Amino acid sequence: MQEILDATQPSDWRPLDPANTLYLDLASGRVVIELAPGFAPEHVANIRTLAKEGYWNGLSINRSQDNFVVQWGDAAEDEKARKPIGGAKEKIPAEFERASKGLNFDRLPDSDGWAPQVGFADGFPAARDPQAGKAWMAHCYGTLGAGRDVAADSSNGTELYVVTGQSPRQLDRNITTVGRVVQGIELLSVLPRGTGPLGFYEKPEQRTPIQAIRLASDVPENDRVALELLRTDSPSFTQIVEARRNRRDEWYKRPAGHIDLCNVPLPVRPAKK
Amino acid sequence: MQEILDATQPSDWRPLDPANTLYLDLASGRVVIELAPGFAPEHVANIRTLAKEGYWNGLSINRSQDNFVVQWGDAAEDEKARKPIGGAKEKIPAEFERASKGLNFDRLPDSDGWAPQVGFADGFPAARDPQAGKAWMAHCYGTLGAGRDVAADSSNGTELYVVTGQSPRQLDRNITTVGRVVQGIELLSVLPRGTGPLGFYEKPEQRTPIQAIRLASDVPENDRVALELLRTDSPSFTQIVEARRNRRDEWYKRPAGHIDLCNVPLPVRPAKK
Repeated sequence: MQEILDATQPSDWRPLDPANTLYLDLASGRVVIELAPGFAPEHVANIRTLAKEGYWNGLSINRSQDNFVVQWGDAAEDEKARKPIGGAKEKIPAEFERASKGLNFDRLPDSDGWAPQVGFADGFPAARDPQAGKAWMAHCYGTLGAGRDVAADSSNGTELYVVTGQSPRQLDRNITTVGRVVQGIELLSVLPRGTGPLGFYEKPEQRTPIQAIRLASDVPENDRVALELLRTDSPSFTQIVEARRNRRDEWYKRPAGHIDLCNVPLPVRPAKK
Repeated sequence: MQEILDATQPSDWRPLDPANTLYLDLASGRVVIELAPGFAPEHVANIRTLAKEGYWNGLSINRSQDNFVVQWGDAAEDEKARKPIGGAKEKIPAEFERASKGLNFDRLPDSDGWAPQVGFADGFPAARDPQAGKAWMAHCYGTLGAGRDVAADSSNGTELYVVTGQSPRQLDRNITTVGRVVQGIELLSVLPRGTGPLGFYEKPEQRTPIQAIRLASDVPENDRVALELLRTDSPSFTQIVEARRNRRDEWYKRPAGHIDLCNVPLPVRPAKK
């Protein structure tokens, strides 16, 4: 894999768009998240407003469920005690899927048990149903989603979760996915598991405080993390997937001949100055 | 799922066999591991000897690679500095797979990209190739394997890893799997990630000391963790799989109609006295 990365061209890489990048700053460091307006425009618009207005600053990560997700938002149980959401919308539609038309979908040839087709769209792991004409972002390690209650349209982006366990693809098309972690997920995946139901922390002091969640575009340039992502429509990416599908190094005795969508690495590197 | 569990019969459960159960004791608590002699008899025999003789006591967890594995063993790089392995065998054969004949294999109807058939055998997630007449344990979250060097037969069970990330099924039939964690995996999955290559810790003080690894049968009865596992050949287990394959609660709007092998929960409970 490193050999393929070393041979990439600058044009194989794309920069993160600061206007669609979130920085989640914790005492332990920074988690960098790419938002996916192509999949969830209304949620991403709301999340951008919430970030701009500092909604999550001083709130906390309230849940860490082993082999599943971490989740943050307002821990107040009483609605009246909750932090006001400022200019963000209280109510927005569910965005579980989108029209596949107009979406650049780089299909993997590999079979998938959860969806008719899988691949990458805008650099995100995704699935597609050509008969229904729909596409959606898949729940893989690092996927960011918008927590909701029982009603499909009960998420507004204030409550967010990141997948930190085995890809929970059963959530696909049951909840709105809004982006993915591109750097620093290990700051989330090591958080102690909560001992309450669903991995919620039982005591407030067990929660991890959020110093700030900001859009990269609202952060002074010298405090930004300049990253590039390998384009999933580049020949180099195709080579990487094949190198992982059929490992041909000395160690592997039997190449798998297959790769699951959520096992495909999505290379990230510091942007060249 | 809880409703199905509540309705199970005592005969749906099996006790952990103390002679094939390992306790990995850390300062943070105990990890309980079920060994799989049916899949790797020579490795399990060696591991039982190593545990009986206290081989790992005072050694450490030396590696935590995000979304992949934690690994323990002797961190000494110089072979001469390594702890003697006592009555265990230095050299044993690779046990990547076994004959499928004689194995009770409870097949899942669900498709799998990595193997012709998947299901459960002796309670472990497993795969089978009927044409080749072979079966093997699958790499899921919690699977315990025996680390090796380049040579297929270079593992002897001294170096062990547990999967703490997205199921690395590409390892199937490339390495010997020897068991799985049945309780306490969250003590492993939250370990800080190592910053060296492959997630090895760069400084000795970053390693997690192993207080002891013992066979449950060598631990006084009042210090044992009595657990029962739901039999994977029981009707209750089939019901649980179906309840997860097609979630019919209020929250899920679209049942998946599919489940991946490594998404199937394997219920564990304290044994009734």
